[in-house]
Amino acid sequence: MFSDLSMGALGLSADLPTAIDLAAKHGFGGVDPDLGYLKQLGSDAAVTEFAAGVGDRGLRWGMAGLPINLTAPAGEFAAALAELPAALSILTAAGIDRVGTWIRPMHDDLSYRRNWVLHVSRLTLVSQLLADAGIRIGLEYIGPKTFWSTERFPFLHSLSEARELIAETGASNIGLILDSYHWYTAGESADDLAGLTDADIVSADINDARDDRERDQQQDLDRRLPGSTGVIDLDGFMSALRAASYTGPVKIEPFMKSLASQPVDEVLADAASRLTSAIGG
Amino acid sequence: MFSDLSMGALGLSADLPTAIDLAAKHGFGGVDPDLGYLKQLGSDAAVTEFAAGVGDRGLRWGMAGLPINLTAPAGEFAAALAELPAALSILTAAGIDRVGTWIRPMHDDLSYRRNWVLHVSRLTLVSQLLADAGIRIGLEYIGPKTFWSTERFPFLHSLSEARELIAETGASNIGLILDSYHWYTAGESADDLAGLTDADIVSADINDARDDRERDQQQDLDRRLPGSTGVIDLDGFMSALRAASYTGPVKIEPFMKSLASQPVDEVLADAASRLTSAIGG
Amino acid sequence: MFSDLSMGALGLSADLPTAIDLAAKHGFGGVDPDLGYLKQLGSDAAVTEFAAGVGDRGLRWGMAGLPINLTAPAGEFAAALAELPAALSILTAAGIDRVGTWIRPMHDDLSYRRNWVLHVSRLTLVSQLLADAGIRIGLEYIGPKTFWSTERFPFLHSLSEARELIAETGASNIGLILDSYHWYTAGESADDLAGLTDADIVSADINDARDDRERDQQQDLDRRLPGSTGVIDLDGFMSALRAASYTGPVKIEPFMKSLASQPVDEVLADAASRLTSAIGG
Amino acid sequence: MFSDLSMGALGLSADLPTAIDLAAKHGFGGVDPDLGYLKQLGSDAAVTEFAAGVGDRGLRWGMAGLPINLTAPAGEFAAALAELPAALSILTAAGIDRVGTWIRPMHDDLSYRRNWVLHVSRLTLVSQLLADAGIRIGLEYIGPKTFWSTERFPFLHSLSEARELIAETGASNIGLILDSYHWYTAGESADDLAGLTDADIVSADINDARDDRERDQQQDLDRRLPGSTGVIDLDGFMSALRAASYTGPVKIEPFMKSLASQPVDEVLADAASRLTSAIGG
Repeated sequence: MFSDLSMGALGLSADLPTAIDLAAKHGFGGVDPDLGYLKQLGSDAAVTEFAAGVGDRGLRWGMAGLPINLTAPAGEFAAALAELPAALSILTAAGIDRVGTWIRPMHDDLSYRRNWVLHVSRLTLVSQLLADAGIRIGLEYIGPKTFWSTERFPFLHSLSEARELIAETGASNIGLILDSYHWYTAGESADDLAGLTDADIVSADINDARDDRERDQQQDLDRRLPGSTGVIDLDGFMSALRAASYTGPVKIEPFMKSLASQPVDEVLADAASRLTSAIGG
Repeated sequence: MFSDLSMGALGLSADLPTAIDLAAKHGFGGVDPDLGYLKQLGSDAAVTEFAAGVGDRGLRWGMAGLPINLTAPAGEFAAALAELPAALSILTAAGIDRVGTWIRPMHDDLSYRRNWVLHVSRLTLVSQLLADAGIRIGLEYIGPKTFWSTERFPFLHSLSEARELIAETGASNIGLILDSYHWYTAGESADDLAGLTDADIVSADINDARDDRERDQQQDLDRRLPGSTGVIDLDGFMSALRAASYTGPVKIEPFMKSLASQPVDEVLADAASRLTSAIGG
Repeated sequence: MFSDLSMGALGLSADLPTAIDLAAKHGFGGVDPDLGYLKQLGSDAAVTEFAAGVGDRGLRWGMAGLPINLTAPAGEFAAALAELPAALSILTAAGIDRVGTWIRPMHDDLSYRRNWVLHVSRLTLVSQLLADAGIRIGLEYIGPKTFWSTERFPFLHSLSEARELIAETGASNIGLILDSYHWYTAGESADDLAGLTDADIVSADINDARDDRERDQQQDLDRRLPGSTGVIDLDGFMSALRAASYTGPVKIEPFMKSLASQPVDEVLADAASRLTSAIGG
Repeated sequence: MFSDLSMGALGLSADLPTAIDLAAKHGFGGVDPDLGYLKQLGSDAAVTEFAAGVGDRGLRWGMAGLPINLTAPAGEFAAALAELPAALSILTAAGIDRVGTWIRPMHDDLSYRRNWVLHVSRLTLVSQLLADAGIRIGLEYIGPKTFWSTERFPFLHSLSEARELIAETGASNIGLILDSYHWYTAGESADDLAGLTDADIVSADINDARDDRERDQQQDLDRRLPGSTGVIDLDGFMSALRAASYTGPVKIEPFMKSLASQPVDEVLADAASRLTSAIGG
């Protein structure tokens, strides 16, 4: 695995060239791509050339966002499907082979099983299109009860459910986005991660939780930097990634607004240090 | 439909003969049977004779409890299955053709889909055994969020999910227990009840909710007498039962401890009056 | 219900205006539309005008073919989805509200459950797009064992399975195409049709079977005109359609090559007569 | 893995002590137990003592038959469940930890999905009871088309479907019975066996097929001794078992009536030789 810089996940904003510079400067192993930026380069050839420059800086690509909304209304989804080949062409030109999305863990109208059919339906189709392009999809389950309990029908919000969904699609290019924060808030332990392999994991996030709240009171958008409070068993999480021989990106996504008011280099130096330390074990 | 007396549902206790006397005295249309009492009568013939006396009083049977725990550990469940024929024999001898249970709306270990498999598995088998005896099973979904959100995996807690489960079993002798309290707390409206028929409903409960709590703060075991607060649209609920040409029992289950300290005749006269009024429309 | 002319289903060819003339001449109640013909009229306005002329002849539209291949490879399916709005626009302009397709009853690679996921996935999406356009989809199950047993994995080939699939999609605009030939070859009886309503049926075909073959030896593409051999219980089939208060098209699809060598007017007069007689009861 | 003697699978009959003598004489590694024989020993202690004698002869237990009919009518199944603990007690006393059954690959009334629910329901319950006793269950899929195509609804008849069923139960003590004859008739190859582990396999059978019939004309009860015709890729099959590090029993089940008219010792010497050779690789 390698440390990965996502400016957005840190609550910072920068265009892709700046993010690449910063990732190189602070010793990250990779950087998350920005499909919008790549698109405006204007041609697949320009994208390929740009990506070569990233490799020349010693950086790998992390994970791009899935360029389609899985739960959009049918008409909107069909229209987005028509746009998908262009996006896949750019991803392919750039050599990006990981995209991901999170699963909304509740719905006000669709029961668990109706929502399941919706997700299986959309994922089955999208994963085949991405498989044809050699791209893997990562799915992130969302753990906090303060989130999944807010509408009439809770949906998938745990590792075991995410694995059930992936199995149901029958797709070999769908895997997990593992986030220590969701793993903790879902009430999971290192045992739940046992048996995973590199093929099961598309991306990983490490974060810690506030130490003045119980697990079921934690908020999805109010986390802490990995290792800072010790609420989450970061060692157990990283040991499981190592046991899986995980080779992909690891990043930080703390949803701490305070970071935006600190000097960027300070934030990134700290983030890189925390990632390197966690990955090193 | 007919008004039905369940002493237990009112938080009162009385043996079955006393309950029958009270039901007759206060003009209820029926009374819930007590399988334990019937069992100690000692023979099917004695049960049949006892039941004839109930009919002579102008009373019909309401619904008995399902005499097996659907979610018991496998060994315990298998042992209970071995005891089931004896219970079915008593029910048959008494002419009781409705039994029911509620569905626990969450689980700490089983994901929604694993819990679904468990329920389908057990219900498929039990419903066939009961069908052989000419008995219908009612399933009650439990609506309050303060209940279904208390463990890691919420489960079935709405009318639409209950109907999905019944459909999955493929059993024609499984129906619903409709309780206005669960219907309200599940966020359902009269529209959700549209299209139901008598064959879909095994039993009905009417209750009201506290008027000093929001819907999502209502507690399963703290309700109000039907029509007393007006929080729940009792008219809409009863209109739907009438539209379904429902022919079964309707009772009250308010979980109000205060009832136990009132004179029994006063409680029952009030309950009978509320039921008669609601049924009359 | 009404008699419906599909030239193609009779093994005859004619452009849509000719088919309309023939339908009117021979007293059919309706005619199957031809999306290709309508498309080349060049504009929605022209389509609407053309359709008005059909109504002026006293004819109703039967069912068009579903303008997308449900089981195409993912890339092809996504591309076809992008073309779907144009087709729906024409159908809407013409006032056509029924389209249909048959379900291939076997697969060499996909197990029953994998094929099920494929069909549910594609149907869920397509049915929503058609619902937005006010169009219903009919699904035809294919009964002959000589067909469904020819690859490694048999798939849906009966009424009960077709109803299971429709239920799984949760779509209210998907219904059945009932063909007496498939009903017979699937080993079904009038009992299997009991309880159907008009909302469950999108189109109906009536055909008879060869009387020199056993049921399991019947071939999908070698049938007989309705009522000609008496192998199939046509009365039972039509009684069921009447019991369902079915209001849609009924046509003949005998797959008899000999019809193409007979005078067209003779074939159509005979077909119209058989349909009128069957519908009349 | 080890060579295993099942007299019944060879079409021969002998009581268990005789089978044990013959297994030892001919150098088999194990012998299939006979639950009926063990039962009449009268006590768990006697069973344990008898089993110790088998071990003293250098033999291991193969697989016993699953002591309950998974597809019996509900009443019969419930009654059989009541008898199951006694059978499990004997199996435990004997140290037998593998039982198995085959899956009937078709049904005249239950659609694939209804039959699936039946099997999942029964297996979920039975596997939990056996897990409590430390016993694994093997499921054998049946491959010949001449068998699965004989009723209205084909059911599970391939490796991939068997694995789907096992996954659906969520049980870790259910595995496969792999038979080279079913693997061949189901149209499978060595690729289909890739990735299996010892935990996935409960028992294995090796047989060959007649060389005067096409694959789809092969009959379930008319096979050949392994390696005798070369129709089946025995090397590919055994290589896959070795790749899985399979540790369980391997036996022969040719359904050749001619064996019963040969001298028993001749039949067993030949069977032992074929098994030893196949296992040796």
